[in-house]
Amino acid sequence: MRIVRYAVGGERHYGEFTADDTGIARFEGDPFTGLSPVGRIDDVGDVTVLPPLESPRIFGFAYNYASHIVETDRKVPEVPVCFMKPSTAVIGPDEAIVYPADGELIHFEGELVVVIGKQARRVRSSEAHEYILGYTCGNDVSDRIVQRKESAFGTLLIGKGQDTFAPLGPVISTGLDPSGLALTTRVNGAVAQSASTADLLLAVPDLVSYLSRYLTLLPGDVIMTGTPAGVGPIRPGDEVEVEIEGIGVLRNPVVAESP
Amino acid sequence: MRIVRYAVGGERHYGEFTADDTGIARFEGDPFTGLSPVGRIDDVGDVTVLPPLESPRIFGFAYNYASHIVETDRKVPEVPVCFMKPSTAVIGPDEAIVYPADGELIHFEGELVVVIGKQARRVRSSEAHEYILGYTCGNDVSDRIVQRKESAFGTLLIGKGQDTFAPLGPVISTGLDPSGLALTTRVNGAVAQSASTADLLLAVPDLVSYLSRYLTLLPGDVIMTGTPAGVGPIRPGDEVEVEIEGIGVLRNPVVAESP
Repeated sequence: MRIVRYAVGGERHYGEFTADDTGIARFEGDPFTGLSPVGRIDDVGDVTVLPPLESPRIFGFAYNYASHIVETDRKVPEVPVCFMKPSTAVIGPDEAIVYPADGELIHFEGELVVVIGKQARRVRSSEAHEYILGYTCGNDVSDRIVQRKESAFGTLLIGKGQDTFAPLGPVISTGLDPSGLALTTRVNGAVAQSASTADLLLAVPDLVSYLSRYLTLLPGDVIMTGTPAGVGPIRPGDEVEVEIEGIGVLRNPVVAESP
Repeated sequence: MRIVRYAVGGERHYGEFTADDTGIARFEGDPFTGLSPVGRIDDVGDVTVLPPLESPRIFGFAYNYASHIVETDRKVPEVPVCFMKPSTAVIGPDEAIVYPADGELIHFEGELVVVIGKQARRVRSSEAHEYILGYTCGNDVSDRIVQRKESAFGTLLIGKGQDTFAPLGPVISTGLDPSGLALTTRVNGAVAQSASTADLLLAVPDLVSYLSRYLTLLPGDVIMTGTPAGVGPIRPGDEVEVEIEGIGVLRNPVVAESP
Protein backbone atom coordinates (compact mmCIF):
# COMPACT_ATOMS: atom_id res chain seq x y z
CA MET A 1 0.00 0.00 0.00
CA ARG A 2 1.24 3.52 -0.81
CA ILE A 3 -0.17 5.76 1.91
CA VAL A 4 -0.27 9.46 1.07
CA ARG A 5 -1.10 12.44 3.28
CA TYR A 6 -2.75 15.26 1.41
CA ALA A 7 -4.80 18.43 1.60
CA VAL A 8 -8.01 18.90 -0.34
CA GLY A 9 -10.75 21.48 0.13
CA GLY A 10 -9.14 22.87 3.28
CA GLU A 11 -8.97 19.46 4.98
CA ARG A 12 -6.13 17.02 5.56
CA HIS A 13 -6.49 13.31 5.04
CA TYR A 14 -4.54 10.15 4.62
CA GLY A 15 -5.35 8.15 1.51
CA GLU A 16 -4.08 5.46 -0.84
CA PHE A 17 -3.07 6.03 -4.44
CA THR A 18 -5.25 4.19 -6.94
CA ALA A 19 -3.46 1.70 -9.20
CA ASP A 20 -3.27 4.21 -12.11
CA ASP A 21 -2.06 7.07 -9.83
CA THR A 22 -4.84 9.41 -11.02
CA GLY A 23 -6.83 9.26 -7.79
CA ILE A 24 -6.48 8.89 -4.03
CA ALA A 25 -8.89 6.71 -2.08
CA ARG A 26 -9.61 8.78 1.02
CA PHE A 27 -9.26 7.32 4.52
CA GLU A 28 -10.52 8.33 7.91
CA GLY A 29 -7.97 8.21 10.71
CA ASP A 30 -4.23 7.86 10.56
CA PRO A 31 -1.86 4.94 10.00
CA PHE A 32 -1.03 4.67 13.71
CA THR A 33 -4.50 4.45 15.24
CA GLY A 34 -6.16 2.92 12.16
CA LEU A 35 -7.22 3.82 8.63
CA SER A 36 -10.68 3.15 7.25
CA PRO A 37 -11.77 3.89 3.66
CA VAL A 38 -14.56 6.48 3.39
CA GLY A 39 -15.58 5.36 -0.12
CA ARG A 40 -14.44 8.49 -1.91
CA ILE A 41 -11.75 9.01 -4.56
CA ASP A 42 -10.08 12.45 -4.70
CA ASP A 43 -8.66 13.47 -8.07
CA VAL A 44 -4.88 13.86 -7.90
CA GLY A 45 -5.19 17.20 -9.72
CA ASP A 46 -7.28 18.61 -6.87
CA VAL A 47 -4.96 17.77 -3.98
CA THR A 48 -1.71 18.96 -2.46
CA VAL A 49 0.50 16.11 -1.32
CA LEU A 50 1.83 16.79 2.20
CA PRO A 51 4.81 15.35 4.05
CA PRO A 52 3.71 11.86 5.14
CA LEU A 53 4.00 12.77 8.85
CA GLU A 54 2.68 15.89 10.58
CA SER A 55 5.48 16.71 13.00
CA PRO A 56 7.75 13.71 13.35
CA ARG A 57 10.74 13.11 15.57
CA ILE A 58 13.56 12.52 13.10
CA PHE A 59 16.52 10.29 13.92
CA GLY A 60 19.34 10.22 11.41
CA PHE A 61 22.32 7.93 10.97
CA ALA A 62 25.66 9.12 9.62
CA TYR A 63 28.37 7.13 7.82
CA ASN A 64 26.17 4.12 7.13
CA TYR A 65 27.36 3.33 3.59
CA ALA A 66 31.01 2.35 3.01
CA SER A 67 30.98 4.34 -0.25
CA HIS A 68 30.09 7.58 1.60
CA ILE A 69 32.67 6.89 4.31
CA VAL A 70 35.30 6.59 1.57
CA GLU A 71 34.27 9.83 -0.16
CA THR A 72 34.35 11.75 3.13
CA ASP A 73 37.71 10.25 4.05
CA ARG A 74 36.38 8.74 7.29
CA LYS A 75 36.64 5.37 9.00
CA VAL A 76 33.76 3.14 9.99
CA PRO A 77 32.54 4.54 13.33
CA GLU A 78 33.24 2.64 16.53
CA VAL A 79 29.54 2.90 17.48
CA PRO A 80 26.56 3.73 15.27
CA VAL A 81 26.56 7.53 15.01
CA CYS A 82 23.24 9.26 15.01
CA PHE A 83 21.62 12.65 15.50
CA MET A 84 18.21 14.33 15.44
CA LYS A 85 16.72 16.79 13.00
CA PRO A 86 13.91 18.98 14.38
CA SER A 87 10.34 18.46 13.11
CA THR A 88 10.33 22.01 11.74
CA ALA A 89 12.83 20.92 9.09
CA VAL A 90 10.20 18.75 7.38
CA ILE A 91 8.79 19.69 3.98
CA GLY A 92 6.77 17.61 1.55
CA PRO A 93 7.06 16.81 -2.15
CA ASP A 94 7.48 19.86 -4.41
CA GLU A 95 8.02 22.19 -1.44
CA ALA A 96 11.12 24.34 -1.65
CA ILE A 97 14.39 23.67 0.13
CA VAL A 98 15.33 27.18 1.27
CA TYR A 99 18.99 27.99 0.62
CA PRO A 100 20.10 30.09 3.62
CA ALA A 101 21.15 33.68 2.92
CA ASP A 102 24.53 32.99 4.55
CA GLY A 103 24.80 29.43 3.18
CA GLU A 104 28.12 28.57 1.54
CA LEU A 105 27.99 24.84 0.91
CA ILE A 106 24.64 23.06 1.13
CA HIS A 107 24.57 19.36 0.16
CA PHE A 108 21.77 16.96 -0.74
CA GLU A 109 21.79 13.43 0.73
CA GLY A 110 19.29 10.94 -0.68
CA GLU A 111 18.17 8.38 1.90
CA LEU A 112 15.79 5.54 2.63
CA VAL A 113 13.59 6.57 5.57
CA VAL A 114 11.92 4.18 8.01
CA VAL A 115 8.54 5.13 9.52
CA ILE A 116 7.91 3.61 12.95
CA GLY A 117 4.38 2.26 13.42
CA LYS A 118 4.36 1.09 17.05
CA GLN A 119 6.08 2.06 20.28
CA ALA A 120 9.38 0.20 20.40
CA ARG A 121 11.84 -0.39 23.24
CA ARG A 122 14.53 -3.08 23.42
CA VAL A 123 13.51 -4.62 20.13
CA ARG A 124 15.70 -7.32 18.57
CA SER A 125 16.70 -6.95 14.91
CA SER A 126 14.71 -10.09 14.17
CA GLU A 127 11.54 -8.45 15.53
CA ALA A 128 12.07 -4.95 14.15
CA HIS A 129 9.74 -5.43 11.17
CA GLU A 130 6.80 -5.66 13.58
CA TYR A 131 7.40 -2.05 14.65
CA ILE A 132 7.86 -0.58 11.17
CA LEU A 133 4.88 0.92 9.37
CA GLY A 134 6.67 1.48 6.08
CA TYR A 135 9.23 3.47 4.14
CA THR A 136 9.52 6.82 2.44
CA CYS A 137 12.20 8.82 0.62
CA GLY A 138 14.18 11.51 2.40
CA ASN A 139 16.74 14.16 1.65
CA ASP A 140 19.05 14.84 4.60
CA VAL A 141 19.96 18.37 3.48
CA SER A 142 23.17 19.48 5.18
CA ASP A 143 25.01 22.77 5.64
CA ARG A 144 28.56 21.42 5.42
CA ILE A 145 30.28 24.52 6.75
CA VAL A 146 28.20 24.65 9.92
CA GLN A 147 28.27 20.86 10.19
CA ARG A 148 32.08 20.79 10.21
CA LYS A 149 32.30 23.53 12.84
CA GLU A 150 29.74 21.80 15.08
CA SER A 151 31.18 18.32 14.56
CA ALA A 152 34.64 19.55 15.53
CA PHE A 153 33.11 19.97 19.01
CA GLY A 154 31.24 16.68 18.83
CA THR A 155 27.71 17.93 18.25
CA LEU A 156 25.41 18.36 15.26
CA LEU A 157 22.20 20.36 14.98
CA ILE A 158 22.23 23.47 12.81
CA GLY A 159 24.26 21.71 10.10
CA LYS A 160 21.34 19.31 9.60
CA GLY A 161 18.38 20.98 11.27
CA GLN A 162 17.56 24.20 9.47
CA ASP A 163 13.98 24.83 8.32
CA THR A 164 13.23 22.88 5.08
CA PHE A 165 16.30 20.62 5.50
CA ALA A 166 14.21 17.43 5.79
CA PRO A 167 12.17 16.78 2.64
CA LEU A 168 10.12 13.57 3.10
CA GLY A 169 7.72 11.73 0.83
CA PRO A 170 5.90 11.24 -1.42
CA VAL A 171 4.24 8.22 0.27
CA ILE A 172 4.69 5.70 3.04
CA SER A 173 5.10 2.42 1.23
CA THR A 174 4.08 -0.58 3.34
CA GLY A 175 4.87 -4.24 2.84
CA LEU A 176 8.24 -3.42 1.30
CA ASP A 177 11.41 -5.47 1.85
CA PRO A 178 14.03 -2.75 2.60
CA SER A 179 17.05 -4.97 2.14
CA GLY A 180 17.87 -4.35 -1.52
CA LEU A 181 16.08 -1.29 -2.90
CA ALA A 182 17.58 0.81 -5.69
CA LEU A 183 18.16 4.41 -4.55
CA THR A 184 18.85 7.16 -7.06
CA THR A 185 19.36 10.87 -6.46
CA ARG A 186 19.25 13.28 -9.39
CA VAL A 187 20.11 16.97 -9.50
CA ASN A 188 18.55 18.77 -12.46
CA GLY A 189 17.94 15.37 -14.01
CA ALA A 190 21.55 14.16 -13.78
CA VAL A 191 22.17 11.09 -11.64
CA ALA A 192 24.33 11.96 -8.61
CA GLN A 193 23.75 8.99 -6.32
CA SER A 194 22.99 5.45 -7.44
CA ALA A 195 23.11 2.71 -4.83
CA SER A 196 21.29 -0.18 -3.27
CA THR A 197 20.06 -0.28 0.32
CA ALA A 198 21.75 -3.70 0.35
CA ASP A 199 24.93 -1.70 0.98
CA LEU A 200 23.75 -0.18 4.29
CA LEU A 201 26.39 -1.05 6.91
CA LEU A 202 23.73 -1.25 9.59
CA ALA A 203 20.61 -2.65 7.94
CA VAL A 204 17.15 -1.29 8.72
CA PRO A 205 16.33 -3.85 11.45
CA ASP A 206 19.66 -3.11 13.15
CA LEU A 207 18.97 0.64 13.19
CA VAL A 208 15.60 0.11 14.87
CA SER A 209 17.14 -2.32 17.33
CA TYR A 210 20.06 0.01 18.15
CA LEU A 211 17.93 3.09 18.86
CA SER A 212 15.35 1.12 20.83
CA ARG A 213 18.08 -0.34 23.04
CA TYR A 214 18.54 3.15 24.52
CA LEU A 215 15.33 5.06 23.91
CA THR A 216 11.64 4.54 23.29
CA LEU A 217 10.66 4.89 19.64
CA LEU A 218 7.15 6.23 19.12
CA PRO A 219 4.57 5.78 16.34
CA GLY A 220 5.32 8.34 13.64
CA ASP A 221 9.04 8.60 14.40
CA VAL A 222 11.21 8.47 11.30
CA ILE A 223 14.72 7.11 10.90
CA MET A 224 16.88 8.44 8.09
CA THR A 225 19.17 5.53 7.34
CA GLY A 226 22.21 7.35 5.93
CA THR A 227 23.38 8.34 2.47
CA PRO A 228 25.55 6.53 -0.09
CA ALA A 229 28.37 8.04 -2.16
CA GLY A 230 27.71 10.90 -4.54
CA VAL A 231 26.60 13.71 -2.22
CA GLY A 232 27.21 17.17 -3.60
CA PRO A 233 26.20 20.81 -3.55
CA ILE A 234 22.86 22.32 -4.49
CA ARG A 235 22.18 25.95 -5.39
CA PRO A 236 19.06 28.07 -5.78
CA GLY A 237 17.36 27.13 -9.04
CA ASP A 238 18.30 23.45 -8.77
CA GLU A 239 15.82 20.61 -8.49
CA VAL A 240 16.65 17.49 -6.45
CA GLU A 241 14.93 14.14 -6.86
CA VAL A 242 15.32 11.16 -4.54
CA GLU A 243 13.85 8.02 -6.07
CA ILE A 244 13.58 4.70 -4.26
CA GLU A 245 12.31 1.48 -5.78
CA GLY A 246 8.83 0.64 -4.52
CA ILE A 247 8.27 4.10 -3.01
CA GLY A 248 8.45 6.76 -5.72
CA VAL A 249 10.14 10.08 -6.39
CA LEU A 250 10.60 12.89 -3.85
CA ARG A 251 11.18 16.06 -5.89
CA ASN A 252 12.08 19.45 -4.35
CA PRO A 253 13.20 22.73 -5.90
CA VAL A 254 15.87 24.84 -4.18
CA VAL A 255 15.12 28.54 -3.68
CA ALA A 256 17.12 31.36 -2.16
CA GLU A 257 16.07 32.60 1.28
CA SER A 258 14.13 35.85 1.01
CA PRO A 259 16.08 38.74 2.51
CA MET B 1 4.21 32.83 38.80
CA ARG B 2 5.35 29.25 39.40
CA ILE B 3 3.39 27.10 36.95
CA VAL B 4 3.24 23.41 37.83
CA ARG B 5 1.89 20.49 35.80
CA TYR B 6 0.42 17.74 37.93
CA ALA B 7 -1.79 14.68 38.11
CA VAL B 8 -4.65 14.39 40.56
CA GLY B 9 -7.57 11.95 40.60
CA GLY B 10 -6.61 10.50 37.21
CA GLU B 11 -6.53 13.91 35.49
CA ARG B 12 -3.68 16.18 34.43
CA HIS B 13 -3.77 19.91 34.99
CA TYR B 14 -1.60 22.96 35.04
CA GLY B 15 -1.77 25.00 38.23
CA GLU B 16 0.03 27.60 40.32
CA PHE B 17 1.61 26.96 43.71
CA THR B 18 -0.01 28.90 46.54
CA ALA B 19 2.26 31.28 48.46
CA ASP B 20 2.79 28.77 51.29
CA ASP B 21 3.43 25.85 48.87
CA THR B 22 0.77 23.67 50.50
CA GLY B 23 -1.70 23.94 47.65
CA ILE B 24 -1.98 24.30 43.90
CA ALA B 25 -4.56 26.62 42.36
CA ARG B 26 -5.90 24.59 39.44
CA PHE B 27 -6.08 26.05 35.94
CA GLU B 28 -7.95 25.12 32.82
CA GLY B 29 -5.92 25.11 29.61
CA ASP B 30 -2.18 25.26 29.14
CA PRO B 31 0.42 28.03 29.29
CA PHE B 32 0.62 28.29 25.48
CA THR B 33 -3.04 28.70 24.56
CA GLY B 34 -4.08 30.30 27.85
CA LEU B 35 -4.57 29.45 31.52
CA SER B 36 -7.71 30.30 33.45
CA PRO B 37 -8.22 29.60 37.17
CA VAL B 38 -11.06 27.18 37.93
CA GLY B 39 -11.41 28.32 41.55
CA ARG B 40 -10.15 25.13 43.15
CA ILE B 41 -7.09 24.45 45.31
CA ASP B 42 -5.60 20.93 45.19
CA ASP B 43 -3.70 19.81 48.27
CA VAL B 44 -0.03 19.23 47.47
CA GLY B 45 -0.21 15.91 49.33
CA ASP B 46 -2.82 14.62 46.87
CA VAL B 47 -0.98 15.35 43.65
CA THR B 48 1.91 13.98 41.60
CA VAL B 49 4.04 16.71 40.08
CA LEU B 50 4.72 15.96 36.40
CA PRO B 51 7.41 17.25 34.06
CA PRO B 52 6.34 20.80 33.15
CA LEU B 53 5.95 19.90 29.45
CA GLU B 54 4.20 16.85 27.99
CA SER B 55 6.48 15.90 25.12
CA PRO B 56 8.84 18.79 24.38
CA ARG B 57 11.43 19.22 21.68
CA ILE B 58 14.66 19.64 23.64
CA PHE B 59 17.55 21.71 22.32
CA GLY B 60 20.76 21.63 24.33
CA PHE B 61 23.90 23.75 24.24
CA ALA B 62 27.34 22.37 25.01
CA TYR B 63 30.42 24.20 26.30
CA ASN B 64 28.53 27.31 27.33
CA TYR B 65 30.33 28.03 30.63
CA ALA B 66 34.07 28.80 30.59
CA SER B 67 34.50 26.81 33.81
CA HIS B 68 33.13 23.63 32.16
CA ILE B 69 35.26 24.19 29.05
CA VAL B 70 38.32 24.32 31.29
CA GLU B 71 37.41 21.15 33.21
CA THR B 72 36.83 19.23 29.94
CA ASP B 73 40.08 20.56 28.46
CA ARG B 74 38.29 22.14 25.49
CA LYS B 75 38.45 25.50 23.74
CA VAL B 76 35.58 27.90 23.26
CA PRO B 77 33.72 26.59 20.17
CA GLU B 78 33.99 28.49 16.87
CA VAL B 79 30.17 28.41 16.58
CA PRO B 80 27.56 27.73 19.27
CA VAL B 81 27.39 23.94 19.56
CA CYS B 82 24.03 22.39 20.11
CA PHE B 83 22.18 19.09 19.92
CA MET B 84 18.75 17.62 20.56
CA LYS B 85 17.55 15.21 23.23
CA PRO B 86 14.44 13.18 22.36
CA SER B 87 11.16 13.89 24.20
CA THR B 88 11.19 10.34 25.57
CA ALA B 89 14.16 11.28 27.76
CA VAL B 90 11.98 13.58 29.88
CA ILE B 91 11.12 12.70 33.46
CA GLY B 92 9.65 14.87 36.20
CA PRO B 93 10.61 15.64 39.79
CA ASP B 94 11.24 12.57 41.96
CA GLU B 95 11.15 10.24 38.96
CA ALA B 96 14.12 7.92 38.66
CA ILE B 97 17.07 8.41 36.36
CA VAL B 98 17.61 4.87 35.08
CA TYR B 99 21.28 3.85 35.11
CA PRO B 100 21.74 1.72 31.98
CA ALA B 101 22.69 -1.94 32.50
CA ASP B 102 25.78 -1.43 30.32
CA GLY B 103 26.49 2.11 31.60
CA GLU B 104 30.07 2.78 32.67
CA LEU B 105 30.25 6.51 33.29
CA ILE B 106 27.02 8.46 33.63
CA HIS B 107 27.31 12.16 34.56
CA PHE B 108 24.84 14.71 35.92
CA GLU B 109 24.81 18.24 34.46
CA GLY B 110 22.70 20.86 36.26
CA GLU B 111 21.31 23.48 33.89
CA LEU B 112 19.00 26.45 33.55
CA VAL B 113 16.28 25.56 31.03
CA VAL B 114 14.36 28.04 28.89
CA VAL B 115 10.72 27.28 27.99
CA ILE B 116 9.59 28.86 24.71
CA GLY B 117 6.12 30.41 24.83
CA LYS B 118 5.53 31.59 21.27
CA GLN B 119 6.62 30.53 17.79
CA ALA B 120 9.95 32.22 17.11
CA ARG B 121 11.93 32.67 13.88
CA ARG B 122 14.69 35.21 13.24
CA VAL B 123 14.33 36.80 16.66
CA ARG B 124 16.89 39.36 17.82
CA SER B 125 18.47 38.91 21.24
CA SER B 126 16.81 42.16 22.31
CA GLU B 127 13.37 40.70 21.50
CA ALA B 128 13.96 37.18 22.77
CA HIS B 129 12.20 37.75 26.11
CA GLU B 130 8.90 38.16 24.24
CA TYR B 131 9.12 34.53 23.09
CA ILE B 132 10.07 33.03 26.44
CA LEU B 133 7.37 31.68 28.73
CA GLY B 134 9.66 31.02 31.68
CA TYR B 135 12.40 28.86 33.16
CA THR B 136 12.79 25.52 34.80
CA CYS B 137 15.63 23.36 36.16
CA GLY B 138 17.13 20.58 34.08
CA ASN B 139 19.63 17.79 34.40
CA ASP B 140 21.37 16.99 31.10
CA VAL B 141 22.27 13.42 32.09
CA SER B 142 25.08 12.15 29.87
CA ASP B 143 26.64 8.77 29.12
CA ARG B 144 30.25 9.92 28.74
CA ILE B 145 31.55 6.72 27.14
CA VAL B 146 28.95 6.72 24.36
CA GLN B 147 29.18 10.52 24.07
CA ARG B 148 32.92 10.36 23.41
CA LYS B 149 32.55 7.64 20.78
CA GLU B 150 29.75 9.51 19.00
CA SER B 151 31.43 12.90 19.26
CA ALA B 152 34.61 11.48 17.71
CA PHE B 153 32.50 11.18 14.55
CA GLY B 154 30.86 14.57 15.02
CA THR B 155 27.42 13.51 16.20
CA LEU B 156 25.65 13.18 19.55
CA LEU B 157 22.43 11.37 20.38
CA ILE B 158 22.65 8.24 22.53
CA GLY B 159 25.19 9.90 24.84
CA LYS B 160 22.54 12.44 25.84
CA GLY B 161 19.24 10.94 24.68
CA GLN B 162 18.58 7.75 26.61
CA ASP B 163 15.21 7.31 28.33
CA THR B 164 15.12 9.28 31.65
CA PHE B 165 18.21 11.37 30.72
CA ALA B 166 16.28 14.68 30.77
CA PRO B 167 14.83 15.43 34.21
CA LEU B 168 12.91 18.73 34.08
CA GLY B 169 11.03 20.71 36.74
CA PRO B 170 9.63 21.29 39.27
CA VAL B 171 7.89 24.38 37.86
CA ILE B 172 8.01 26.89 35.03
CA SER B 173 8.89 30.14 36.73
CA THR B 174 7.70 33.19 34.81
CA GLY B 175 8.76 36.81 35.14
CA LEU B 176 12.29 35.80 36.08
CA ASP B 177 15.44 37.67 35.00
CA PRO B 178 17.72 34.81 33.84
CA SER B 179 20.90 36.87 33.77
CA GLY B 180 22.29 36.18 37.24
CA LEU B 181 20.59 33.22 38.92
CA ALA B 182 22.43 31.04 41.42
CA LEU B 183 22.60 27.41 40.20
CA THR B 184 23.56 24.62 42.59
CA THR B 185 23.76 20.89 41.94
CA ARG B 186 24.02 18.49 44.85
CA VAL B 187 24.67 14.75 44.83
CA ASN B 188 23.53 13.02 48.01
CA GLY B 189 23.39 16.46 49.63
CA ALA B 190 26.99 17.47 48.81
CA VAL B 191 27.40 20.50 46.57
CA ALA B 192 28.97 19.52 43.23
CA GLN B 193 28.18 22.55 41.06
CA SER B 194 27.79 26.11 42.26
CA ALA B 195 27.63 28.85 39.65
CA SER B 196 25.71 31.85 38.40
CA THR B 197 23.91 32.02 35.06
CA ALA B 198 25.76 35.35 34.73
CA ASP B 199 28.67 33.17 33.58
CA LEU B 200 26.87 31.73 30.54
CA LEU B 201 29.07 32.48 27.50
CA LEU B 202 26.01 32.83 25.31
CA ALA B 203 23.29 34.39 27.47
CA VAL B 204 19.68 33.22 27.30
CA PRO B 205 18.54 35.84 24.72
CA ASP B 206 21.49 34.93 22.49
CA LEU B 207 20.61 31.22 22.59
CA VAL B 208 17.02 31.93 21.50
CA SER B 209 18.26 34.29 18.80
CA TYR B 210 20.86 31.83 17.51
CA LEU B 211 18.49 28.86 17.20
CA SER B 212 15.72 30.98 15.67
CA ARG B 213 18.11 32.27 13.03
CA TYR B 214 18.12 28.80 11.52
CA LEU B 215 14.98 27.06 12.67
CA THR B 216 11.47 27.76 13.90
CA LEU B 217 11.10 27.46 17.65
CA LEU B 218 7.65 26.30 18.77
CA PRO B 219 5.62 26.88 21.95
CA GLY B 220 6.67 24.27 24.49
CA ASP B 221 10.19 23.83 23.11
CA VAL B 222 12.86 23.82 25.79
CA ILE B 223 16.45 24.98 25.59
CA MET B 224 19.00 23.51 28.00
CA THR B 225 21.53 26.29 28.34
CA GLY B 226 24.67 24.32 29.23
CA THR B 227 26.34 23.24 32.44
CA PRO B 228 29.02 24.93 34.60
CA ALA B 229 32.05 23.24 36.16
CA GLY B 230 31.64 20.42 38.63
CA VAL B 231 30.02 17.68 36.56
CA GLY B 232 30.64 14.20 37.81
CA PRO B 233 29.47 10.62 37.97
CA ILE B 234 26.25 9.28 39.47
CA ARG B 235 25.53 5.71 40.47
CA PRO B 236 22.41 3.74 41.39
CA GLY B 237 21.34 4.77 44.89
CA ASP B 238 22.42 8.38 44.44
CA GLU B 239 20.10 11.37 44.58
CA VAL B 240 20.75 14.44 42.42
CA GLU B 241 19.31 17.88 43.10
CA VAL B 242 19.46 20.84 40.72
CA GLU B 243 18.44 24.06 42.46
CA ILE B 244 18.05 27.38 40.71
CA GLU B 245 17.22 30.66 42.41
CA GLY B 246 13.63 31.70 41.73
CA ILE B 247 12.64 28.27 40.38
CA GLY B 248 13.13 25.60 43.02
CA VAL B 249 14.72 22.18 43.42
CA LEU B 250 14.60 19.36 40.86
CA ARG B 251 15.33 16.15 42.77
CA ASN B 252 15.78 12.74 41.14
CA PRO B 253 16.98 9.39 42.48
CA VAL B 254 19.20 7.15 40.36
CA VAL B 255 18.17 3.51 40.01
CA ALA B 256 19.74 0.58 38.18
CA GLU B 257 18.05 -0.59 34.99
CA SER B 258 16.03 -3.75 35.58
CA PRO B 259 17.56 -6.71 33.77
